[in-house]
Amino acid sequence: MKFSLKHTDPQSKARVGEITTDHGTIATPIFMPVGTAGTVKAIHQRELHQDIQAEIILGNTYHLYLRPGLDIIEQAGGLHKFNGWDKPILTDSGGYQVYSLSGNRKITEEGVQFVSHIDGSKHLFTPENVMDIQRTIGADIMMAFDECAPYPCEYKYAKNSMEMTHRWLKRCCDRFDQTEGKYGYSQTLFPIVQGSVYKDLRKKSAETIASFEREGNAIGGLSVGEPAEEMYATTDLVCDILPKDKPRYLMGVGTPANILECIALGIDMFDCVMPTRNARNGMIFTTQGILNMRNAKWQADFTPIDAELGGYASTHYSKAYLRHLVVSKEILGAQIATLQNLSFYLWLVQQAREHILAGDFVQWKDRILPVLMQRL
Amino acid sequence: MKFSLKHTDPQSKARVGEITTDHGTIATPIFMPVGTAGTVKAIHQRELHQDIQAEIILGNTYHLYLRPGLDIIEQAGGLHKFNGWDKPILTDSGGYQVYSLSGNRKITEEGVQFVSHIDGSKHLFTPENVMDIQRTIGADIMMAFDECAPYPCEYKYAKNSMEMTHRWLKRCCDRFDQTEGKYGYSQTLFPIVQGSVYKDLRKKSAETIASFEREGNAIGGLSVGEPAEEMYATTDLVCDILPKDKPRYLMGVGTPANILECIALGIDMFDCVMPTRNARNGMIFTTQGILNMRNAKWQADFTPIDAELGGYASTHYSKAYLRHLVVSKEILGAQIATLQNLSFYLWLVQQAREHILAGDFVQWKDRILPVLMQRL
Ligand SMILES: [Zn+2]
Ligand SMILES: [Zn+2]
Repeated sequence: MKFSLKHTDPQSKARVGEITTDHGTIATPIFMPVGTAGTVKAIHQRELHQDIQAEIILGNTYHLYLRPGLDIIEQAGGLHKFNGWDKPILTDSGGYQVYSLSGNRKITEEGVQFVSHIDGSKHLFTPENVMDIQRTIGADIMMAFDECAPYPCEYKYAKNSMEMTHRWLKRCCDRFDQTEGKYGYSQTLFPIVQGSVYKDLRKKSAETIASFEREGNAIGGLSVGEPAEEMYATTDLVCDILPKDKPRYLMGVGTPANILECIALGIDMFDCVMPTRNARNGMIFTTQGILNMRNAKWQADFTPIDAELGGYASTHYSKAYLRHLVVSKEILGAQIATLQNLSFYLWLVQQAREHILAGDFVQWKDRILPVLMQRL
Repeated sequence: MKFSLKHTDPQSKARVGEITTDHGTIATPIFMPVGTAGTVKAIHQRELHQDIQAEIILGNTYHLYLRPGLDIIEQAGGLHKFNGWDKPILTDSGGYQVYSLSGNRKITEEGVQFVSHIDGSKHLFTPENVMDIQRTIGADIMMAFDECAPYPCEYKYAKNSMEMTHRWLKRCCDRFDQTEGKYGYSQTLFPIVQGSVYKDLRKKSAETIASFEREGNAIGGLSVGEPAEEMYATTDLVCDILPKDKPRYLMGVGTPANILECIALGIDMFDCVMPTRNARNGMIFTTQGILNMRNAKWQADFTPIDAELGGYASTHYSKAYLRHLVVSKEILGAQIATLQNLSFYLWLVQQAREHILAGDFVQWKDRILPVLMQRL
């Protein structure tokens, strides 16, 4: 992987860059749609390419490991071959799902024992086998195995957890560096800054993570329930420590406002289930604001979903039709709303890149956010 | 509406023709995807056009009447404007759903009282108001309001029901002829032959229906559980009575074998939920046979879903990937399987048309059906 920084905004810490992988280049700042079990829910691969113009998608190690399973993915020749998405893929470490989906899990120094939410079978994730699993999935960008501490979280717990995450990172790096990609293209490993909302822990973690000198760095454990101001303060503090010449990935964030504010703090990569999950609940993001399609006010609104955004779903279908589909629980409702939301998120980061290059990013952000975040 | 007969097969009663409506022409024999509540489930409108190459879709009067309701459809300017499908639409009369979905219904000479399966509200369908409803929906082809008798059905019940259907047809035609389309394009009304599996009733009904001299005719009450041989015998008998110079529509049929056999008997139009409903259950039709995607045998089969059929979904995704999506209950599984099945059904009738014109329809049908109907 290669990262080249093209431009830094003089009025903020926003940057425009380019990540190059063996599956193609990614313009940053970028939003990465979440493709949980090898599919961005309700979206065809060609829609990701042509309509949404996604440049990289996520896969969830926990889900893919359980189903279809590593033997199938390896026989297919990796996840790209399996799901027919030939651009870059990033996989998480599986940690987050182990903590959130598996009721019955036990964290030890060795790793995490857990029970499958699908069939109750027992499994163990360790820093080492999570590297092996992501090697087999074949992600272009792999994530270190960490403990994502809960929020709120006692200082003592956060400190111990962060220290274990650092010890696990050493094990991840050792395993990663001793192994090779299985499919002839290169993979890279991003470590993750933890430390909850405690400034000294975050500083310590950012310094430790930076010292590993990997090709990119991530910030985890945010957007877990803390106030937005704490998220921004932590992101700011960490970004100032992480090296400038490597991409910075803020995991699991967030709303359009979160994304633009964190771009201003120096973040280059984002992922979040919000655009896809909210779409399936009938909540859509548009260039005019946020719409709850269950609201009766859209019942007879025959204007396009988002004429200004453009694109097929946004202009071909009306708000009234989408509302009807959502209320009737029709699959096409989830398809249209997801296309709209992901197109909007990719438009948002594309606009951010343009305004950073044009030199008016902060003015644009402050002007547009009240529009984008209003509930219509 | 205009129907022109292009060619009749000398070896069977199969025909190739063309229906012209104000929303475009339809090559017959044709299969019409079912768009229940104004959406062909899991399919975008542009996929219907470009991938499936559908020429006409169905809408269900019962569903559309209950949701979004007539006021919304009328404000939109009709169903075409509402759902963004600008080619022909055929609506059923609502009768079938009233009998199958509404537990609490009462049939009288006046019409059918029923209770909404959505909110328990009370409604009345009569031959007259069902014409008004389909005028408002704006279907290019409207269907007469009939009673679809259950199967099996006593002779006496079938005879009474058929006679009432004929009296209702008179009322439908009177109302239709006294009213006009609401949106500036013309609509037409097809009557429906009933009579269960009784030859004398079917003969009587076909003669009665023919005597109304509408622009097209339909056969109802088949594919309701009777043996295929009875369906074919009844279709044969009725086709011989219905006029040659008008399209014949066999309602709710059927499997690929049913469709090709009934094309050979002189049927021009088909609809069925089988390709769409089965897709959502993981059952797919291919040019090589029928596949149950839940079967473990597809787990590591990385060949395309249906290379010979061609098209995006059939060639871009593998059987193993589709199986994974189906087993994981992913929406994309329903999307891919539905695209495959409808593309297959439209391919089937397109092939039938070509072979009728080429003069080898019967030979082709007898050669290909054992392939298409085998379970792989
Ligand atoms: Zn999120
Ligand atoms: Zn059917």
